[in-house]
Amino acid sequence: MEQNTPRPIRCKAAVCKAPGQTLVIEEVEVAPPRAHEVRIKILCTSLCHTDLTFWQMKVTAGDTVVPVFLAQCGDCADCLSHRSNICSKLPPSFSAGLPRDGTTRFSLAATGQPVYMFLTISSFAEYTVVDVAHVVKVAAALPLEKACLLSCGVSTGVGAAWKVAAVEAGSTVAVFGLGTVGLAVAQGAKMCGAKRIIVIDLNPDKLDIGKKLGVTDFLNPNDIEEKPVSEVIKEMTGGGADYCFECVGSAPVMEEAFKSSRTGWGKTVILGSDGSAKPLSISSSDIKRGRSVHGALLGGIKPKDDIPVLVQKYLDKELQLDEFVTHEVGFDEINGAFDLLQQGKSLRCIIWMDGAKERTISA
Amino acid sequence: MEQNTPRPIRCKAAVCKAPGQTLVIEEVEVAPPRAHEVRIKILCTSLCHTDLTFWQMKVTAGDTVVPVFLAQCGDCADCLSHRSNICSKLPPSFSAGLPRDGTTRFSLAATGQPVYMFLTISSFAEYTVVDVAHVVKVAAALPLEKACLLSCGVSTGVGAAWKVAAVEAGSTVAVFGLGTVGLAVAQGAKMCGAKRIIVIDLNPDKLDIGKKLGVTDFLNPNDIEEKPVSEVIKEMTGGGADYCFECVGSAPVMEEAFKSSRTGWGKTVILGSDGSAKPLSISSSDIKRGRSVHGALLGGIKPKDDIPVLVQKYLDKELQLDEFVTHEVGFDEINGAFDLLQQGKSLRCIIWMDGAKERTISA
Repeated sequence: MEQNTPRPIRCKAAVCKAPGQTLVIEEVEVAPPRAHEVRIKILCTSLCHTDLTFWQMKVTAGDTVVPVFLAQCGDCADCLSHRSNICSKLPPSFSAGLPRDGTTRFSLAATGQPVYMFLTISSFAEYTVVDVAHVVKVAAALPLEKACLLSCGVSTGVGAAWKVAAVEAGSTVAVFGLGTVGLAVAQGAKMCGAKRIIVIDLNPDKLDIGKKLGVTDFLNPNDIEEKPVSEVIKEMTGGGADYCFECVGSAPVMEEAFKSSRTGWGKTVILGSDGSAKPLSISSSDIKRGRSVHGALLGGIKPKDDIPVLVQKYLDKELQLDEFVTHEVGFDEINGAFDLLQQGKSLRCIIWMDGAKERTISA
Repeated sequence: MEQNTPRPIRCKAAVCKAPGQTLVIEEVEVAPPRAHEVRIKILCTSLCHTDLTFWQMKVTAGDTVVPVFLAQCGDCADCLSHRSNICSKLPPSFSAGLPRDGTTRFSLAATGQPVYMFLTISSFAEYTVVDVAHVVKVAAALPLEKACLLSCGVSTGVGAAWKVAAVEAGSTVAVFGLGTVGLAVAQGAKMCGAKRIIVIDLNPDKLDIGKKLGVTDFLNPNDIEEKPVSEVIKEMTGGGADYCFECVGSAPVMEEAFKSSRTGWGKTVILGSDGSAKPLSISSSDIKRGRSVHGALLGGIKPKDDIPVLVQKYLDKELQLDEFVTHEVGFDEINGAFDLLQQGKSLRCIIWMDGAKERTISA
């Protein structure tokens, strides 16, 4: 964090001018933080499919922090309960993404035109201003490129296994989707002691990394003839997986995940969102055989409470993070990082704001 | 239980000859129990909408027992886990209902024609033979007509609040359906310390009994203009109920129950089955806000472990059961008990096999 001066800062930011257009790096003016806010110097960042990025009260100048799209005000019924990670004072908004007072701290330096933030915590700029409820302080010993993994995708997957499903040691797990979130579920399940972790995907490209992260079995639906995936998983697990995770964002895949769960105690965790808003259809007689379906944002992780725990687990070598960083680029190559993600070539691509740390893109 | 003799017994049984026809009380021959089975003298019984009736290893002659449609073999992965109540060695079957060896112990005395059982534990006879895995021994101090309530409907509702939802003290609860199961949910939620228990039904007839069992608020959807029930419940509870229970068996009601649950930690428990097999539709973006949907048979109750706990809670006056018995009849009036249930006039009607205890039907 930079010193808390009352003056605006001019710096570079990657600005999105219209949906689908490549980002343009422009000089912006970043206003000083207002009440409840902190201004942060961004050192490196990354991007998700949902595209997201990063918070602890008592943040002081010089602390290393990650901004997180879910707030933790610490005062509301949700923040005070162990059962919720969805702050009811500052609930998540997936639209405008403006701070508490409804105004933005960004403007284009040249014209003064306002620039808006994604999810209230834009990190595609050298400096950003975010509400202190969205900031998590992390241990200085944590490498920066590992810190930014924990702000969203990796925490979502690890948390889904650790917090939402509470995977028990010796369990069987089925993960639908072999991307960053799916692999983070596998790593979270491994951290919890799962004995068998089956991943289902049409594309086996990331299986080698997956095996390093805990995947024990891979299933390609294209290789199965005349049998639904759920039937194969039931055969592999002797009746169905203990825990199923949907990390694709497709209602039919959610339904197949649910059908793959065992009677008695099978839990299905929904991590993807169906972009077509198609609902998930569940048979009441199927769910009544002791099954359940759970949904969560950020894998049930309470940012200020749980991210520091994940940091410690990484430092103690109980949680693997290194394998998720497949690429690293400089800030001026940010659109190349979007291409890699869109082509399914990268897991996480770290974007270093400081050109000195720039690496070249390799597929 | 009668003495374990190897001879068949002739006694009366209420036989269903065709779907929808009134039961006919006929003399039947009840074969001696085979391996893993016990022959039971039925003293009183009752009936549910699903129509169900009653089991502990080490049952000896003279014990008071209740047969239960869910088995607990005590050996399988499910019986050994605290997470499941669905025995995988003797899984529930809602069709033929034959014992482990696939043969029935009942035949018509006059013709020798075989008579089949409902859910493997028919109690509409003076004697029945059931697998010992389906029998729960209960304390002799428990009045018989309270014992038979715990074999199904009341345990389903109480268990849904106590075991499946694990209702926390001070919570808000919404129960869809003001019948025996819904009222048992209200009583279970009250037992767990819920502070507000809202029941939703089109028919307020059982509200007076409901208030005695813990209902604090009643909502008739016909009295609400141009607003879905879930919106009214959100207004009443400041954002949604902590726990919602569907006890009707209607997919649209299940969906309204889900929508009535609060973000962050709202749990919806499905107790009804949609007879038309219409699936429950859930928006993935709605469930991802920290919600979950759970299904259970017998309210997650593990018969041999949990029914004795409920018996003790009744004896300790922590659980009310008396209010559920609205009618008592003799065995020869069993078809009248069906009429009362169908007309929505009764909660539980106790059927005494011994005419000496016969009471008249009153609406």
